[in-house]
Amino acid sequence: MNYADRIEAAQIERGNPCLIGLDPHLDLLPEEFAVARDPSAPRSERARAVEQFLLGIIELAAGRVPAVKPQSAFFERLGADGALAWERVVAEARRAGLLVIGDVKRSDIASTARAYGQAFLEDAGESCCDAITVNPYLGADSIEPLIEVCDRNGAGLYVLVRTSNPGSGLFQNHGDPPLTQLVASEVERWGESLRGECGLSSIGAVVGATHPEELGQLRQQLSHTPLLIPGYGAQGAGATETLGGFLPGGRGALVNSSRGILYAWRKPENDGLHWKDASLAAIEKMIAEFRQALGTL
Amino acid sequence: MNYADRIEAAQIERGNPCLIGLDPHLDLLPEEFAVARDPSAPRSERARAVEQFLLGIIELAAGRVPAVKPQSAFFERLGADGALAWERVVAEARRAGLLVIGDVKRSDIASTARAYGQAFLEDAGESCCDAITVNPYLGADSIEPLIEVCDRNGAGLYVLVRTSNPGSGLFQNHGDPPLTQLVASEVERWGESLRGECGLSSIGAVVGATHPEELGQLRQQLSHTPLLIPGYGAQGAGATETLGGFLPGGRGALVNSSRGILYAWRKPENDGLHWKDASLAAIEKMIAEFRQALGTL
Repeated sequence: MNYADRIEAAQIERGNPCLIGLDPHLDLLPEEFAVARDPSAPRSERARAVEQFLLGIIELAAGRVPAVKPQSAFFERLGADGALAWERVVAEARRAGLLVIGDVKRSDIASTARAYGQAFLEDAGESCCDAITVNPYLGADSIEPLIEVCDRNGAGLYVLVRTSNPGSGLFQNHGDPPLTQLVASEVERWGESLRGECGLSSIGAVVGATHPEELGQLRQQLSHTPLLIPGYGAQGAGATETLGGFLPGGRGALVNSSRGILYAWRKPENDGLHWKDASLAAIEKMIAEFRQALGTL
Repeated sequence: MNYADRIEAAQIERGNPCLIGLDPHLDLLPEEFAVARDPSAPRSERARAVEQFLLGIIELAAGRVPAVKPQSAFFERLGADGALAWERVVAEARRAGLLVIGDVKRSDIASTARAYGQAFLEDAGESCCDAITVNPYLGADSIEPLIEVCDRNGAGLYVLVRTSNPGSGLFQNHGDPPLTQLVASEVERWGESLRGECGLSSIGAVVGATHPEELGQLRQQLSHTPLLIPGYGAQGAGATETLGGFLPGGRGALVNSSRGILYAWRKPENDGLHWKDASLAAIEKMIAEFRQALGTL
């Protein structure tokens, strides 16, 4: 089944567009997983701790939000043991009924691009992601092999268009029209062949909430493209700043929160709460915030 | 020791700028490693076959060329077992006296970028790479955390500037000046703080040989930046097309060949040769070609 249709159905079923980023910053994990940041501990034990923490988050996310987004960098810090933790986390999230967007931001040319698509969307068995993030810098011939994999497997892509970091304009704003707009028009075009019954494509775009005006403009330009919106929460944007990214009815966009959910226990106001209780409250607060904000659309 | 000085010393010692790309295309491996492409075989055996093939290539490369460039996508197709093969291949290449450039083309923001740097350049023990390739699309604040890791560890980066694929101009040529030139001027500036005794920086640039005129122009602009030049061999460029990328004396650039070396046994003229003999002959031919071409500089 087409990825765009699957994510749309999951969003409708859960009644919210919240995406939980699984970013296991070793230094931020709760004390009970402290072995993860101990370089003298066996790496397999460290990776196991990362996995256990994330399985706890998945338990909280399941049935509440449509999807999770594991970030590969933090797993890669633990080498092959981290790769095993990644596989287990992805598989468990899918078993729990969550869609999984692998935040890998890969890019390469020709057969190498295809190999990345196969790695994350085709060859990994029960650890296949439903979609991955990809970087457009290399051009259309670096994305086409990935689109072919999506076409075969009902998987999706989110192409970086405008990222949420403060310095994203350095290259993304270059030229007239700005590079971002050129990338956006290509993404919309690349997605034409993979549109689902919902009218949106399986080829999505990453557009940061930290540039709310641009988000609205890009939403116009990307009229059949689902958005993945980072920048909410710890990065500074509120639900209001993301509204320009949605289609009527609160469709067509997912908003990510990573640190704000996973490390909610570190906030002063959650002092004394168990990390699970703090994370659950943060998930419920985010969901309520979006239900309210999207109700006004 | 500064990466730029290490790669310069290795190039002088070997007397050539040849970089062997370790791209284990499962479908192209010699028959004795056919288990690698058998999806019904245990994944650990498949990864072991990939590893054995590449250890054979490393044996041929050691003492002959300055460096090798494993490409992560093909390892990632085999999941955690592929990650283990990656670690063993990197460690073995370093033990054999080769510098290792991890072709991972990662990119992300802030602490996530740092995590990628730590993963490949700091936390991996004997499997740390000497340098990695990175993608600049996210801007300076996605590269700075990696530069900090390089500063601590004497590691290097190669930032994608102009890639070798036919469609690389779509975004890389956008604007006036073209994006490529803007990225190049930033790369040269980012490298200022990491210049070695050889005068070059540990922050390098990827510039494809498939655009020879641009290569010459970018060499001028990137006057303290070591280049990694893909596009030679199977992608169509000869040694002559790469000359514009070198500094006087044949310094300051590495030229990559992957398929032309690893799969030399598949060429009709090598029919009947053992894959190792065909690869060794291809390495020696490439070295001779560059010694001759660079002698004219």
